[in-house]
Parts: sequence; C-alpha cells; structure tokens
Amino acid sequence: MDTSTGSIPSSRAFISDNMAGASPEIVQAVVEAAAGQVLPYGSDPFTDKVRRKLDAIFERDTAVLLVSTGSVANALSLAALTRPWGSVLAHPASHINTSECGAPEFFTDGAKIVTVAGDDTKVDPDALQQAVRHRVGDVHAVQPSVLSISQATESGSVHTLEEIRRLCAIAKDAGLRVHMDGARFANALDTIGASPAEMTWKAGVDVLSFGATKNGAMTVEAVVSFDPALADELAFRAKRAGQLASKMRFHAAQLDAYLTDDLWLRNARQANAMAMRLSDGLKAVPGIGLSATPQANIVFCRLPQQAVEGLLAEGYTFYHGRWGHGVVRLVTAFSHTPDDIDGFLDAIRRHAG
Amino acid sequence: MDTSTGSIPSSRAFISDNMAGASPEIVQAVVEAAAGQVLPYGSDPFTDKVRRKLDAIFERDTAVLLVSTGSVANALSLAALTRPWGSVLAHPASHINTSECGAPEFFTDGAKIVTVAGDDTKVDPDALQQAVRHRVGDVHAVQPSVLSISQATESGSVHTLEEIRRLCAIAKDAGLRVHMDGARFANALDTIGASPAEMTWKAGVDVLSFGATKNGAMTVEAVVSFDPALADELAFRAKRAGQLASKMRFHAAQLDAYLTDDLWLRNARQANAMAMRLSDGLKAVPGIGLSATPQANIVFCRLPQQAVEGLLAEGYTFYHGRWGHGVVRLVTAFSHTPDDIDGFLDAIRRHAG
Amino acid sequence: MDTSTGSIPSSRAFISDNMAGASPEIVQAVVEAAAGQVLPYGSDPFTDKVRRKLDAIFERDTAVLLVSTGSVANALSLAALTRPWGSVLAHPASHINTSECGAPEFFTDGAKIVTVAGDDTKVDPDALQQAVRHRVGDVHAVQPSVLSISQATESGSVHTLEEIRRLCAIAKDAGLRVHMDGARFANALDTIGASPAEMTWKAGVDVLSFGATKNGAMTVEAVVSFDPALADELAFRAKRAGQLASKMRFHAAQLDAYLTDDLWLRNARQANAMAMRLSDGLKAVPGIGLSATPQANIVFCRLPQQAVEGLLAEGYTFYHGRWGHGVVRLVTAFSHTPDDIDGFLDAIRRHAG
Amino acid sequence: MDTSTGSIPSSRAFISDNMAGASPEIVQAVVEAAAGQVLPYGSDPFTDKVRRKLDAIFERDTAVLLVSTGSVANALSLAALTRPWGSVLAHPASHINTSECGAPEFFTDGAKIVTVAGDDTKVDPDALQQAVRHRVGDVHAVQPSVLSISQATESGSVHTLEEIRRLCAIAKDAGLRVHMDGARFANALDTIGASPAEMTWKAGVDVLSFGATKNGAMTVEAVVSFDPALADELAFRAKRAGQLASKMRFHAAQLDAYLTDDLWLRNARQANAMAMRLSDGLKAVPGIGLSATPQANIVFCRLPQQAVEGLLAEGYTFYHGRWGHGVVRLVTAFSHTPDDIDGFLDAIRRHAG
Repeated sequence: MDTSTGSIPSSRAFISDNMAGASPEIVQAVVEAAAGQVLPYGSDPFTDKVRRKLDAIFERDTAVLLVSTGSVANALSLAALTRPWGSVLAHPASHINTSECGAPEFFTDGAKIVTVAGDDTKVDPDALQQAVRHRVGDVHAVQPSVLSISQATESGSVHTLEEIRRLCAIAKDAGLRVHMDGARFANALDTIGASPAEMTWKAGVDVLSFGATKNGAMTVEAVVSFDPALADELAFRAKRAGQLASKMRFHAAQLDAYLTDDLWLRNARQANAMAMRLSDGLKAVPGIGLSATPQANIVFCRLPQQAVEGLLAEGYTFYHGRWGHGVVRLVTAFSHTPDDIDGFLDAIRRHAG
Repeated sequence: MDTSTGSIPSSRAFISDNMAGASPEIVQAVVEAAAGQVLPYGSDPFTDKVRRKLDAIFERDTAVLLVSTGSVANALSLAALTRPWGSVLAHPASHINTSECGAPEFFTDGAKIVTVAGDDTKVDPDALQQAVRHRVGDVHAVQPSVLSISQATESGSVHTLEEIRRLCAIAKDAGLRVHMDGARFANALDTIGASPAEMTWKAGVDVLSFGATKNGAMTVEAVVSFDPALADELAFRAKRAGQLASKMRFHAAQLDAYLTDDLWLRNARQANAMAMRLSDGLKAVPGIGLSATPQANIVFCRLPQQAVEGLLAEGYTFYHGRWGHGVVRLVTAFSHTPDDIDGFLDAIRRHAG
Repeated sequence: MDTSTGSIPSSRAFISDNMAGASPEIVQAVVEAAAGQVLPYGSDPFTDKVRRKLDAIFERDTAVLLVSTGSVANALSLAALTRPWGSVLAHPASHINTSECGAPEFFTDGAKIVTVAGDDTKVDPDALQQAVRHRVGDVHAVQPSVLSISQATESGSVHTLEEIRRLCAIAKDAGLRVHMDGARFANALDTIGASPAEMTWKAGVDVLSFGATKNGAMTVEAVVSFDPALADELAFRAKRAGQLASKMRFHAAQLDAYLTDDLWLRNARQANAMAMRLSDGLKAVPGIGLSATPQANIVFCRLPQQAVEGLLAEGYTFYHGRWGHGVVRLVTAFSHTPDDIDGFLDAIRRHAG
Repeated sequence: MDTSTGSIPSSRAFISDNMAGASPEIVQAVVEAAAGQVLPYGSDPFTDKVRRKLDAIFERDTAVLLVSTGSVANALSLAALTRPWGSVLAHPASHINTSECGAPEFFTDGAKIVTVAGDDTKVDPDALQQAVRHRVGDVHAVQPSVLSISQATESGSVHTLEEIRRLCAIAKDAGLRVHMDGARFANALDTIGASPAEMTWKAGVDVLSFGATKNGAMTVEAVVSFDPALADELAFRAKRAGQLASKMRFHAAQLDAYLTDDLWLRNARQANAMAMRLSDGLKAVPGIGLSATPQANIVFCRLPQQAVEGLLAEGYTFYHGRWGHGVVRLVTAFSHTPDDIDGFLDAIRRHAG
C-alpha cells in the first residue's frame, strides 16, 4: 500500500490527529458560509461572532487573530511577546524548537529559543528559576523575555493547573510574559477539567495558540491574546505575515461551528477516550512497554521490531524510529471509533504475541 | 444598514471580488475532502492531483506551493527570487508596494521595492530599461534583482502578450528574474485569450502567484515556479512562514475543483463580462466619466458626489475617495448576474441623472 | 595616475570629505589612549568623558552610542524609532534611501522608506503633511512612524531652524518621531549659527546621527538620543549589530578630541569656507553653471565636457556623470587650504576658458 | 578603586585581553595613515596592501573584509555560509552562542545555532557526526549548514590540526561549510606551530574570523574567505551591515602593522608565555585548583573565596562567579610583563596561603 498518495482507513491512521478530516458540523458551517457577499478581511459577521464566542468562553475581552496554521499561531504570538534580542524559554522537545523550521526565529526577527529541560516534556520549575534570571541586564546576552509552554505537550502529557500557575509565576516574577502552545488545548482541558480561563489567563498566560485543526477543523487556528494592548501589534504582524485572509469568513465559520454546542470539547473527549482505550488495551499485552498512561490523545509505547514491521505491512501508519529503539507514537483523533481501536489492539496482539 | 457585520446582497456588493463566497463546485470538493484519513502536510492524493493539473495546464514541470493568501504567495515568490540586498522593480500602484503592509520586505529579509512608473498601471519599458541597470555592481546601492508585474493590474488593465514579453526581455537581459502577481490571473487570461504557458514562462516569467480566492475559491492561492531549482528553497521558506498546512488536502481540494472543467476560466469570464456590461451601461449615462474600457473585472468611473452618497445610502458598497474627487472603483465577481448589474445601473442612473 | 591605489594630493581631492585623513588632535588622542589598561566595552574613562561632553554640548541628558560608520548610526537610530511595519519618511535623495544598500531595511527588520520629495533636497512640508496621515490605522499599509531629515543635506543645502521646527511639528502632531542624519552636522551648525540643542531636540529631533568621520575623525560616529527611554533598546541593538567595540576607548578618544576646544566646529568652518571660496571663484568663470551658493561644504556646478576631462587628466578627482550632463560635485574638507582651492580654480579656468 | 572609570595597571588587569591598549607599531601605523588624501571605502593603498599580505600569509587568494568587531566578523561570516533555514552547529560555550546577544541570528536573518557539546570546549566528533545528519531534507526542521569552531576556544584550549581536520571532514562529508572563530587565532597558531594555511583552508575551513583587536590592534578584525565565490555576497552584506568604513585606511593600517615583521605572532607568543608563567606559578601554590595547563592565553583556576575577595580589594580585576564556586578566569595579553605575572602570583600566594 502506497500511503503517500492514497486515503487511509481510520482504523489504520495513527500518525497524527491531523490525518483526520473535518467534523461534519464544521463542514456544514463552511458550506453555509459560502453563500452570499460579506465584507472582506474579517469585517464579516462570522468573524465577529467568533470573537464574541471566544470572549465568552474565556470570560473576558480578548484580542483574536484567525490564522491558517499552528506554526503561524505560535510564531505570531512569540513575535508579539519578545523583541529580537529576547529569548524564548521552552522545553527542548517543544514544537517551536524542533518542528517549525525556524518559524519563531523568522517571525520574531531573530529572537533565540533557549531550552529549559524537565521531565514529562514539561519545563522544570527549578531550572526555569535559573533561566529567567540568566544574565538579565547583560547586553552581551539575549534577554529572557517569554516562557512558552505546550498544553498538552508534544509527548501527550498535560500540565496540572498548579504546574501552569507555578511556571507562570516564576516567569512573571522575573518580568517575562507567557505563551501557551495549545495545538491540543481542548484535549488538555478535557483531561484536567478546568475552565478555559483557569487554564490560561487566570494562571498567568498572556497569549494562547488556540488549536482547532488537529481537533476537527480544516485549516484554522486562533491566536487569543489576553492583553488587549497587543491587539494592534498582532493585527499588523498578521497582515505583514500574509495572514489577513480576504475571505476570513471561511476561517471564522470553521471556528464558529467548532465552538458551538461544545463540539471542540466533545471531539477532544472522544480522542482522549480512544487514547485511553488504546492504552488500557496495550497494558494487557505482554511485552509491550507503555511509557505512561496517556493524559491526552497521544500514546507512546515500545513494540518488538517484528511487531512494528508487521503492523506497517498491514497498512497501519504511525511514527517510529525517532525516539529510541522500538518506541512508537500513536495518536488518536476525534474520528476514531472504539472499533478502530479494538481492531488495532487485535493486530498488535497478533504481531507482538 | 450596518455593512460591518451583515451579509450584503450580490446586487450591492462592488467593493472587491473577495466579497463573493465560493463556487458550488469548490464547496462540494471541500465537503468530499473532509471525509477520511490522509497523510498530512501535502503528502495526500488531493495535493498530488493539483500538482499534476498545474503541470498540465502550464505544459511543463512546475514547483508548486499551496498557500493561504495572495500576500503570502507574492512575498514567498519574491523571497525566492532576491537576496536581501536586492531590489524588486514594480509599479508604484502594485499591490506588493501599497497593500501588503511590508510583507515583501518581511519575507525577503529586507529587500527593497523600487518603483518604476508607467501608464495604465504597467511598468514603462523605457523606465525599466534604466532601472534594471541602476548602479549595478555598486555596493552602496541595492541591486536590481526581480521585476514584478501584475496581470491583471490593480486598476484592471491587462498586459498584452507582447508587453509581457518585452518587459521580461528587458529584465532577463539584465540578469533579473520575473515574478507575476496573478491574483486575477484567470481574468487576464480570459481577456487576452492566451494560454497559461504563453502568458507566463514562455514570455519569461519565473514564478507566478496563481490566484484563486478572488475568483471563486475560499482560502487558497498557489505559487507556481517554472524554475525547478527553486523547489527546495520554496518548500523551506513556506514551512518557515507557517504555510505548510497540516491538512493541506483542504487547500488542494479547492484548487482541484477550481481547475476542473475550466471552472476557473468560466468564473473569470463571468466576472469580466459583468464588468463589461457595467461599463457599457455607464457609457450611456450622461455625466459619468469612465476611466477606460475595463479589460478585466474592475471598472473605474467618476460619479457626482450626490450619486455616491445616494448609492451608499441605498446599501451599495464600493471603494471611493481614494483616487481623486468622485472616482469610484467597482469590482465584479463570478457571482454577479446580469440582473445585479442592471439593477446597479438603474440606481446609478437615478442618482446621477 | 592610478587613483585606485595611490595617495592623492589635497589640492586634487574633491570626491568627498572622507578622502581626508584625521585631524592631528584626534590622532594624538588615539596615541595617548593606546597606553594602559582599561575596562572593555565602553566601561572606560574615555567613553565616560565623551558622554559627559555630549550632554554638555546638547544641554541635557542624552543616551549615546559610539559606532563605527554613519550607515550604522542611521540604521540603528531608525531601528529604535520604528517597528517593522512602520515607514520612514525621507527625501528621495537621502543617503538612507540611495546609498546604504538596504542597511535601514536590515536593521529595522524590514521597515519601508517612503520618499517625500521637495526642493533643495529637503522634504516639502505640504507633501509631508499628506504623507504622515497616509492610511494611518489601515492594516494593509505600512504606518508612518519616523521622519528622517539630513542636516546638512546630501546636496549641501542646510535646513533653517524654522524649517526643521516646521517639519518636526508636522511629524510630531501626527505621532511620528524624528531622526536627523547629521553626517555633516557640524557643517550645518556652522552655517546657521544655532546651538546644537536648538538644531536638534529643541526643534523636535528625537535621535541624531552625529557625524565625525567626514569632519576630521577616523572611524567613529555617535548616535545621540534625546529620549532616555531608548537607551536600553539602543544598547541591545548596538551589541546585536556588532557595534559594542571591546576597545571602545579608541572610538571615544577620537570623539573626545573632536569635541575639545571646538575642534569639530573649527574643522567644519574651514571646510565650509573652502567651499565658499571655491564657489565664489567659480562664479567668476564664464560658462560655469553653479547650482546654488553652497551652504555647507558641497558645491555643485556644471562644467564643459572638455573641462571635466582635462581636470581628470591632471589628476583632479570628483564625482561626475551622476546628475545630468556636465554636472560635477565638489566636496571640500577641513584639510583643504586656500591654496588648494585657488589652484583648483586656476585649473578650472584653464580648462573651461 | 572605581574600576568603572579609571585606568588599571597592567599588573592588575586580567579580565580580558581587550583591556590592553594597542601595540606601538600599530599606533604608529595609524598616525602615518592619518596624513594625506586617499580614495574612500577601501579603494586605498592601505587596504590593498593588507589584502596582499593576507593572501601571502594564507598562501592563496582570499576574499577579505575589514570590520570593526569580532561579533561582526563572526556574524557576517555565518550569514554568508547559511540560508535563514539553516542551522549553525557550535559548542554550547561558543562566543556566538553565549556572548553576542543574537548577532548571528540577526545577520543570518534568523538561522538557528544548534549546540553540539564536547570536552574542553571543543565540539565532540561523534556528536557532530549525529548532528550533521539530523533531519536533513526534513522540511519541518532547520537544516545543518555550518560548523563553527573557535580556535583558540573560549576556555583557552586549542584544537590540534588533526582535530580541526576531523571536524571539518565530518562537516564537509555532510555538505556543511566551516567557519572558524579566530578571535584568538594567533594565540592558537603559536601553540600548535602550524602555518595559517594548515590551520584553516588546508584543514577544511571556508571562512575565518581573523582576530586582531585582542592581540594588539585597536578596532579591527578581518573576515577571510577562502571561497572566492563568496566575495560579492560578503561585500554586499558588509555594506548593508554598515561595515564599509569610508576611511577604511584606518582599519587597514592597523592590520598592515599587525601583519608586519610577525608582530601578530610575537604578541601572541608573549601573551601565551605569560599565561604559562602564571599557570606554572599557580601550580606551586597549595590549595589552588588549576583547570588545565593553558594552551593559549587564558587560565582557569579555583581560588578560595577569601583570596578572590582579597585580590579584588587590592585592585586586581578578573572574571569570577560565572563558572562555579571559586572558579576565576585570568586572561593575559601581549602587554603583560613577567613582572606583572610575578607580582600577581605574589598577591595570590599572600591571599591563598
């Protein structure tokens, strides 16, 4: 099977949650938005509605950009939070550090990502304490300016509210601002059962990359700033980055449906539940090393080499070979069904047995 | 009527072709693309198909990026064609010079747009002849590196094949490369009746911003490079600019439908015909100054002040007050009908009479 | 005579004031500074002394950077005064627009120079009035952020105090900040007989490129900011631009001597007087078209072609062929003597007679 | 004693080799260069002579830039060797990574420094072997483009010829280019007794930051490119960075004297010898931990806290408190005498006894 050009059954798609298509509600919203004339560049009723919904969900005024990818959301957020001689403190495994080909450096005009390690893909508070004060005021060194944390993280772990608050407090005490990469924001929210406000600005987050694409939308993410003073800068930076879509309605319609009737939370809940089902099933398979109980929709486990090969041969798709011998990453999406998971578990049992 | 938040009848929407929604065929393609799992980041069957269609349409191998806006298409194209110490020669009224808030400067890491004037919003060949040789080799001056021409232009004029060839030849003789801003590429193509190949690489164009959004798509444009050597650079620049959409299929599906059964040409033909109908009608109204017979889907005319005010009061929308006393810009779209135009002409007659 | 590698007699050197060497007092200061150990990076007594002298000369607290070239002084100044989506309003013939190979664009991370024409190489106030309000608040357009004026200008004209005040007032009323390119600041000051404070911050200038190299120093210019709030940003930008010299004392020693016993004003006075002597002499030569009475140390005149060739053949050096048929630019320096000028006039009479 | 504004005796100056003034021969050369008129911007006989001397010293044609600081030399070199989506592999303790406030990121338009650790402040070959192949061709990741090594290193260690060759070979095999930060190039050369050619291009170095300021010059460093194809790019980048000094002769005169009669090597030999004398003396003091036998002109040792305080109280200056408890860095310069060292050793014995 040539996975490079063909459609892949849901039951075999575990590479990433961006393999999934779009939720029917979101598709329907786009269809409806396609009719009729509206003003361009976000001066349309759809965009207006999304702004109001986000204000309601976050329980406060926000400044919002609708953008086309998560990398743009992150990079624009960081650009608004640091000057070019600043540093962005982030985990070594953070998406901004490993997987955006320098987009943060590009959008910030050359600010530097300084990594701060920690267990579970989370920045260690003690290490952060050092990092935020590293050579502050020393003109020879980049100046700590932003803390960026991922919620959920790239390994599928989720910060507790207390962890977020502590990291934010350390950053804020030292005069830094805080960015949250929420590519899987809804998944994390579902896990910790907090409100969107609690998990962000009430804990100290200044700007959020609010993910939607991985969780059922097509091509839209939002930058949500809790600092209204950043609104103008974000708007100019977005235009300059080519992100002021002329037919913004199509971005907005996706988000509008996403935020209606808790679709975003329902999708995340489904993806998370499927990850848990997969994890529970794996625990029962002898010889499978499970990294940890998944907290969001990502499962890391260790499979025997012949199992990896056998599964790939049957058309199962997932990332492997990047994290150490036999380690595979399995990502579930809103579109996975219990049958998809159970079928996959059957196959794993067959190959790993 | 509050045009900032409401839907506007097609009969009253003349601000820009980006006020229109999307063609039904394109909507349908997106709906179909939403089902099922595919590989992310463009390794999907939809993107593959679009690449092959563009190769066929342009009668040669091309390197293609699917991006989210026309500003991105232009800025990425220019970035691949000039070093930061280069200059981009373009008409003063070009979109890249007036309406992208510095996106070209951002993406090119600070290259300079040097304007070369000319009638009809077209770069004057004699002036270009001077500009391409201005201080070449002088380290104190930015170095002429790219000619960027818009086809159709921002005023709705269209370069003839001969004009394009001549401008390209001047640029090429001096070692420059050529970019074409084709935000309204299909409209221009319809006007001059050339083939896509003739209007681009056969005339000397290196990289094309291939517009789709203004002509019936939702949120997609393509960068089409006729120089395969630029493929890698374009790919890295696009990723770094946050333009490598994870669910690229949704960009691709739009373009796929756009390029199927000549939809792109049919849409352009309709928009152009409506502009001509509008222009013809205006000619018959005493006291209306018409700038020129429209060559694409833009009509410039001069209306009495009380006509402008009267039309706005009835809910007609169009840009005015930017080009001199009484000058208004009227843009038609694929979605306009003869009735829309005739109704508008009636209203103009009533107010301008 | 091969002027590309040899030394040129003062009597024949009219290309630019940067052909001259350095004033003996400045050389002596550098010699004295070379002995002994001091702290690096500007924490030395020389730099401290220069800061205090500049504060005294400008009659207020200033923030000062010592940098290695005028292009750096201009580019760093502009970078501190505009965000990347801003525009710098400047005369088309300004050095920043024509002769710095994009250094302003580089240091500002891509801000745009928007030219505002005017007679005598001075920005026209009425045109400025339009430009400062051009599309303010429109996210599609770069935002007017800085007015940059040259004093003296690139053609050797000098703004009156009243002209500076008027231009600054227009800029300030619209919320812009003002940069002055003072590569020939002392020459202009000598001409209008104002105080340094009057010609800068009292008239509305925020940041000054304070020239020294063309007027007798070796390799140093200063950025003088009258806004203390810019001190930190300037310091970080300077370090990041590689301008924090480890042996800053050598920059400082030059400026210290330059500012001692009015050397800077005496040098400028001499250069200006020599330009006037040259101009007066040229007026008496039949057939020489003189552009204007020089206001600083630059003389533009029109010579018969055979005179240009004859002078070049005798080893005279000057720029020609850049401004129209027969127009030559003659620049005098502090090191020119009356004999140098008289000899040149003799030669001109011989060739133009 | 207020070290922030006063002159410091040579006997007490161990902060850095940039505390020293300039060699008398270099001062004299500047004095001589100050007389007379020459063409600006490097078209002068001094610059020409330096170019020829560097070609002779490196036994081949080179492309040379004379610049004002080491940070500029490094940053321009890297900018010419990588595209913005590239990565620069360098030791975590490298000057470009720790002490240039993001100058490399600024000049390269946002390329990323990826650190590769190793003992003795040298990149580990095995780790480099991994790093050069990390995600090559993967558009999501920055692409390994340059290896940058410091010779001597920031801790005063010196790569052997064999080590340089091995690191370069690994880089070259993978298609990377090699930059050498030679801020203390002469010190390293003295240590390993190789020729300049052997230590650079013959070993695989493409571009060298050739240091002079720390070793007796005032304000000049050179970028020496062994790839003539980079000459144009370097020239435009230098101008754009404001590094094309109008009175370039003053940079060139310094380097000319520096390269005459082996002054550069004699200065380095003296500084190295003084470091060895200091190190030898320290070995004989009980309770002093010496990091390693110095290979260039930097000595790291561990002093009792009361010794640190006692020495500082007597006016000795050096960096401490940056590398762990009690660790101090002592840097010797060409201007140190045996008496300076012996006096310092006496003081250390008194305080550490």
